[in-house]
Formats: sequence, C-alpha cells, structure tokens
Amino acid sequence: MTTPSRTTAGEDPPEARDITRRLARYVVATRSQDLPEGVRREVGRSLLNWLGVAIGGSRHEAVEIALAAVTPFSGPPQAGLFGRSERLDVVNAALINGISSHVFDFDDTDLLTAVHPSAPVMPTVLALAELNPVSGRDLVTAIAMGFEVECRLGRAVQPALGAVGWHPTGVVGGFGAAIAAGKLLRLDEERMCHAIGLAATQPVGVREMFGSMTKSFHPGRAAQNGLLAAFLAEKGYTSSLQGIEARRGWARVVSAEQNWQAITNGLGEDFEIYRNSYKPYACGLVVHPVIDGCIQLRNEHNLTAGMIERIVLDVDPIVLELTNKRVPQTGLEGKFSVYYVAALAIVAGRAGEAQFSNGMVSDPVITALRDRVSVTADPSVAKQQARVRLHLRDGRVLERFVTEAVGSVKNPMSDAALEAKFIDLAEGILSADRRRHLIDLCRSIEWLADAGDVARAATAGRSWGSMNR
Amino acid sequence: MTTPSRTTAGEDPPEARDITRRLARYVVATRSQDLPEGVRREVGRSLLNWLGVAIGGSRHEAVEIALAAVTPFSGPPQAGLFGRSERLDVVNAALINGISSHVFDFDDTDLLTAVHPSAPVMPTVLALAELNPVSGRDLVTAIAMGFEVECRLGRAVQPALGAVGWHPTGVVGGFGAAIAAGKLLRLDEERMCHAIGLAATQPVGVREMFGSMTKSFHPGRAAQNGLLAAFLAEKGYTSSLQGIEARRGWARVVSAEQNWQAITNGLGEDFEIYRNSYKPYACGLVVHPVIDGCIQLRNEHNLTAGMIERIVLDVDPIVLELTNKRVPQTGLEGKFSVYYVAALAIVAGRAGEAQFSNGMVSDPVITALRDRVSVTADPSVAKQQARVRLHLRDGRVLERFVTEAVGSVKNPMSDAALEAKFIDLAEGILSADRRRHLIDLCRSIEWLADAGDVARAATAGRSWGSMNR
Repeated sequence: MTTPSRTTAGEDPPEARDITRRLARYVVATRSQDLPEGVRREVGRSLLNWLGVAIGGSRHEAVEIALAAVTPFSGPPQAGLFGRSERLDVVNAALINGISSHVFDFDDTDLLTAVHPSAPVMPTVLALAELNPVSGRDLVTAIAMGFEVECRLGRAVQPALGAVGWHPTGVVGGFGAAIAAGKLLRLDEERMCHAIGLAATQPVGVREMFGSMTKSFHPGRAAQNGLLAAFLAEKGYTSSLQGIEARRGWARVVSAEQNWQAITNGLGEDFEIYRNSYKPYACGLVVHPVIDGCIQLRNEHNLTAGMIERIVLDVDPIVLELTNKRVPQTGLEGKFSVYYVAALAIVAGRAGEAQFSNGMVSDPVITALRDRVSVTADPSVAKQQARVRLHLRDGRVLERFVTEAVGSVKNPMSDAALEAKFIDLAEGILSADRRRHLIDLCRSIEWLADAGDVARAATAGRSWGSMNR
Repeated sequence: MTTPSRTTAGEDPPEARDITRRLARYVVATRSQDLPEGVRREVGRSLLNWLGVAIGGSRHEAVEIALAAVTPFSGPPQAGLFGRSERLDVVNAALINGISSHVFDFDDTDLLTAVHPSAPVMPTVLALAELNPVSGRDLVTAIAMGFEVECRLGRAVQPALGAVGWHPTGVVGGFGAAIAAGKLLRLDEERMCHAIGLAATQPVGVREMFGSMTKSFHPGRAAQNGLLAAFLAEKGYTSSLQGIEARRGWARVVSAEQNWQAITNGLGEDFEIYRNSYKPYACGLVVHPVIDGCIQLRNEHNLTAGMIERIVLDVDPIVLELTNKRVPQTGLEGKFSVYYVAALAIVAGRAGEAQFSNGMVSDPVITALRDRVSVTADPSVAKQQARVRLHLRDGRVLERFVTEAVGSVKNPMSDAALEAKFIDLAEGILSADRRRHLIDLCRSIEWLADAGDVARAATAGRSWGSMNR
C-alpha cells in the first residue's frame, strides 16, 4: 500500500488526473475472461456468504419496519426480497435487501478498508437480474467490477474517512452499486463516468448511527443510490467526467487525505476481492481467535462444559477494552462479552447469529461456565491471536495458541464452513432442499444461463415454487 | 450572527447539547397561531415564486431524462408533476419536482447561507398533500418549520461547508424535507429526532456537479431523502437522538466548523424566512443591479435600442470576473455576459428564463446594442449596486445609481412582481385562467381546506380539469 499523500488546496496531483474516466474505461472494457479464475471463484463464495446473511437478516425488525414504510409507494413487483415472499420494484428491493444484508453485522469485510463490499452490490445486481435476464458470467463480472471500484476508492480515503466520522461502506458503496449496475446495463464509457459522478454526489452514513437501525440503512441506501445513478446515466442524465478527482469532487469533499495511486495502481492485475473476508462468528472480529481456540480444543477432545473447571485466556488488550461484559443480559450484549463467547464456543461449538439470542445468553449451562472464565490482557498477543488454556476437572490442562483466526485473509473460511454458515443462517426461513439448491447455484454461478435463478430461489415467494423443485 | 467556534476532537461544547431534540421539540410543538403573520405571508410568496420556477422548469431536458429513468420502477400515481400531466408515487414525484425546481437556478435563496430553501421542501409537502388531505394552515406551518431548520443548519456550517466543496442546498435540504414531512405526518418528538437523524446521514451534493444536470438533482434527492426519513421514522425506524450534534454526527462530519448557537438562538422568535429572497431575473445575482438600472431608465424614458449610442457601466469587480463574456453563443452563456444582459434589459425590459434562449442571444437588435456596452470594474461600487449611464443619440446622458438591487432582503420583489414572474414562467404550460387560479390559491393558502388543491391545479393533468374551472 503506497503512502497516502495529503492534497492541499491549489495542488492538483498528476496521479489524480482522469481517475473517473480511467475507472470507467476499465470497467466497460473488462470481460469475464479477463478475470482470473480465483477472482471469479471468490465472487461465488462472496455471493453465498452474503445470501446467508441477507436471508438470515430478513426477519429483523429493521427490515419489517423499512418494508412497511416503503410498501405504500413502491412500484411494480419486479424483484424479490431475500428470505421473504414480498416483491417490490427494483430500487426499493435494493434498499430492503441492502438493509437485511448488514443488519446482523455478519457480512463480508474488506480488511484493508473496513468496507463491507457485498451489501451495496449484491442487492443491486440481483434486483437487476430479475428485471432483465443476465447470464451468470455477466453477473460475476459486474460484481467483481463493483467490488474492485468500491474497495479501491475505500483505500484512497481510508483511514481519514472513518476518522472524521463517515461509515466507509455507505460512502463507497454507491460507487460499487453504480458500477455493477452500469456494467449490467452495458453503459458506454461516458455514461459510466456520469453514473460514477451521480454516485459521487450521494455519500451515505455517519458513524453516530452505529448501534441503531440506520447503520444497516447505509448500505441499503448506497445500493439504491448507485442503482438510480446507473438508471439516470443510462437515459443521458449528466453529472461530471471528473466526479471522483475534481477539486470539488468526491474524494476531496469527504476526506482530508487521498491516496490517488491506490485507485488505479495495478488495476486489472491485482484484485481487491482476494482480500475479502468472511466472518465465521456473528460477533466482533476481536473475539474470533478465542472462539477458534475453544472450538478446536472442544472438538479435538470431545469436551463438555461439565468437564471444564476453568478457562484462562490471554488476549490482545483491545479485547478487554471492547468485550469486558461479565454478565451480558441480552443477545446483543453477549456479542460484547469475551466470557460468554468462550463458554458458548465450548458448549455449542459454534457462534452463529442463533447463538446470540436472548435465551442463549441466560442458558444455565453456558452462564455457569461463563463465570469460570478469566481473561488477561497480554500485549504480546496480537489482535488476530489468542491463547486458550482449559483446566479440566480431571487435572489435564489443554492449551491452544491461535496464530491467525479463521476468516482472516491468511486463514480463510473453507467452502464447507461457508456452506455451513449459509445453512445455519437460512434455517427456518428456507427449506433444506432450497438451501442446498442455492449452494449449488452459487457454486455454478458462472454457468447459469439466467442469474435471476439465484434471486428467485432465495426469495420465499411463489416464483420459486413454480420452478417445482 | 455569532462568531463560528471551531470544534476540535475531544471538545463537546455545551451549546451543542441536545440540539437535535431541541429542534424536534420546537417543530412538534409549533402551531399555526405561533407563527407571526409576516412569516405565514412569506410562505405564500415563497410558494408562488417556487411554483413558477418549478412549472417553468418542468419541460427541461434534465426533467425529461430523470422522468424516463424513474418511470419504470415508480409506484402508484399518488402525486402530480408540476407543469406536467404524469403522476408518480410521492417519493419519485418529490425527486422530479425537486429537479424542475432548481433546473433554471431561478428559485429562492436564503442570502445568509446560499441555501435554496424551497426546492427540497415544497415538492415534499405538496406530494404529501396529495396523498393525505391537509389544510392550508398545516401546510404553511410545515413549510415554515422546514425552512427554519434547513436555514439554521446552513448557518451552523456555512461558509466552511461550501468551501470544502459541498452544495449547501443538498446538504441541509434533507432536513428541511424531513422536518416538513414529519410535521405533516404528525411525528412525535422522538420520531422527529429519528427523522432528523435519517436526514443527517444522507447529505447530497458536491460542487463539481455545478454546470451539469446533477446540480438540480441535489435538491430533488434531498427532498426524497427527507421524505423517506420521515416515512421510516413514522413506522419506528431508529437512528440517533443526537444526529446533528454528536461527535460523529452530521455537523462535524460535513464541516470543519460549527456555529452551534445559530441553530437554536432565537428559535421561535426570529424566523429565517424573513431573509428569503427571490430572483427577478433568470441569471446570476451579480448582474441584477445592472439589469435594474437599465430597466428603470428604459421605462422612465420610453427608450428603444435605436435611441441609445452606448451604455457605460460601473460595477463591483466581481461582475467582470464572472460575467465578462463579450459574445455569448448560447442562452446559458448569455447569463454570463454583463454586455448581453444590459442590452437585453433595454430591448426587452425583462430578463426571465425566456430571455435567455439561444435565439434571443443572437437577436440582431440586442447583439448590436450589446456591442455598444462598456464596463468598468469600480471597487467603490458594492455587489448589490451598479452605476448605469446611457448615452443617447440625441445627446442626453441618463444616469442611475442602483443602491440595492430588486430581490434583495432590503428591496424585495413586490407581490405584483412575483405574480408577473410566475405568469411569465408558467406561460405556454398552464392556461391563463389556471395561472390566475394558482395565484389566488397561493394568496389564500392559509384558508384552503385542502392544500392538495395547489398541487392539482399546478399539474397539467386530468384531475384539475375535473374540477371544472
């Protein structure tokens, strides 16, 4: 990563020149066969991970409320809602599906920028795929282009963007959605520039909204903004051909610092999606190493809670700063209790969204074990690491040092783990054979003649039933 | 105006405390009878001025394109488009009417902040008035509240907001629309706070878009954002109760400086709408004093172009910086030619949108006179002033020093001038009796049982015809 250069008024760095047009040109020119196999494979994995999260989140109160709010003015039933039976026009569907994508905070993350790339892009392309048939190959290319641009723009303004108080996903997500939609709509280079400009003028999301329903509104609105940008540009609406880099354009308005090189260096050669990561557990990344270590020891030694006298953890000091809640009262508080998650990992062997219900948090077996957890902040332990020591009642002491938590770029979730996460999240919402079918569709996404099949299978409505599977 | 205080990280000024809640409380509590008669009267004047501009702008290419883009996914025909026959759902109608409000750059301006207060607010409340019947009195109160909040927030962050590259109308317009819509929806204090928070997280508009269609998209999208914010909050969607003032809230994210006092000082006693101004001429404010002087002398002395040998102008130096185009080729360029506007004022006696057509700019009588205009930058002449000297062929020299251009707060457009501007803009779009009827409706807006009558009369569709007037 090159060093960010601070741009001051009056300065117009040559590396900023024509960035909007260069991005548009690249996106318009890129064909499926220009993408390495690894990129295309990762799109399928991102899609499956995202589908599970969006389906799992689809019954959340925030989704119900937003749906009730937009239904009275929604247009024709053009696109389905993931995990639900209602259909809305494409733009409102993108909003609602965007909200359910992020409402669990369980979606994918670009680790360099903290951008959640799927939440604004996937709802957009899948809504479009229901409106106009599109091949799986084209869908994958559009997603890859959207991810590429939003993450590169994120790198250009992070960490200054977040430091001032922006939610990065909302601020770059509109570009991802506009690019991906523009690619599916086959915009030419100039119209793609205008779509980028229209996205540039609609950043969404201040950090004050974290902890409220509005956090998940951010990627939802970014999806809508980008989709509308592409539709407007398609019809000839004009914005600017320098929306990103101009003196009064996006990058300099939202951020005090710009790393222009990050936007175009290695474009078409290095791909941002290689750094996309998936959360195995439905809680903050900082406690993931602890959960990993506990689950590993549990499974290797067939442990039950009753066998364990106490759990001793050495962790990065940040863990206690963020998750030192000894007696969580709600599922949400459970996510901020390193004690709870350690006990949970031993008892349940997993830490999906279902394991952070209010009921689980007061489960007597888990709470009893939770009170036998002690934690030491150890500056020699890094953020992606944890030392777990289990003192068993039979006198044995089992120890595991986790060097790289599952879900990081260096230790990615396996295909099997992603499938298990998907099945877990979609349970109780889609039938077992529907879930299996969706996994197959994501695996074979590139070979689908009609990528709208994914959207139809992931929505619980009539349309899939009529496919008679 | 109090001096802006720069807030630095870690500092939490007491005057910022509870600003969101204080605004919400004020807006929720205010009744029609709490507003001075002058405020209510000015709302009617703002409404008439805005209606003319929106109707006049309704055939602009930007409107046609945006309408073509949103029609395929629009919902039920809930609200009309001003000056047109199409009907869209309320949210998309607010977008299109917001675009036509600003596409001529001829709408009202809060002179302290450069905010155009009507463009985001009026399309929102009039769309809602078609959805659910609302009295004229309630409509006026909602508009006054929307104006009040958007202009006060503008003062809190201007001029720093514009300096960094934001378009102020897009950044505060969402609040105006959310407040006005929330008032019509009768949100309680807490839901009003959430509506404000949802507006806070959706600022729109970077200045790079000036000169493109996207400039007028800004107030249109702000109208939509605010309307959606109010609808979401109504159903219980949560954001923050400190969306404006929080450390990572709106004011500190979009601007490096905040004048917190400007938001709440004198709330309910002093009213921003008193400083609302209307443009008599469809071009930049800087050349308005020149046009004033020329029109005054023309009318007083019954002048024609042929009687004039040359026109000599002394102006603030900014006039030549911005409008020194000697041979404008298009109507748009004509707006940036002090030579053209002076000649135009003598020949036509007016300078409405129709006088900035491509045809007018190449009119032989005007261009001949235009070439006899000379301009001197005179630092002793203020921005709202101009000295006009007409050397007549008969040897007379007529001089007029304009001290305060028409349309400024100190020299406001008269009711008659506003009516003439409205009639001019709506000509060729609405019939003469329809125009007359709308003027009457704006004059009597407070006494209307159903304020939706304004929207129905201003849209060229069937619904008004069925009123048989």
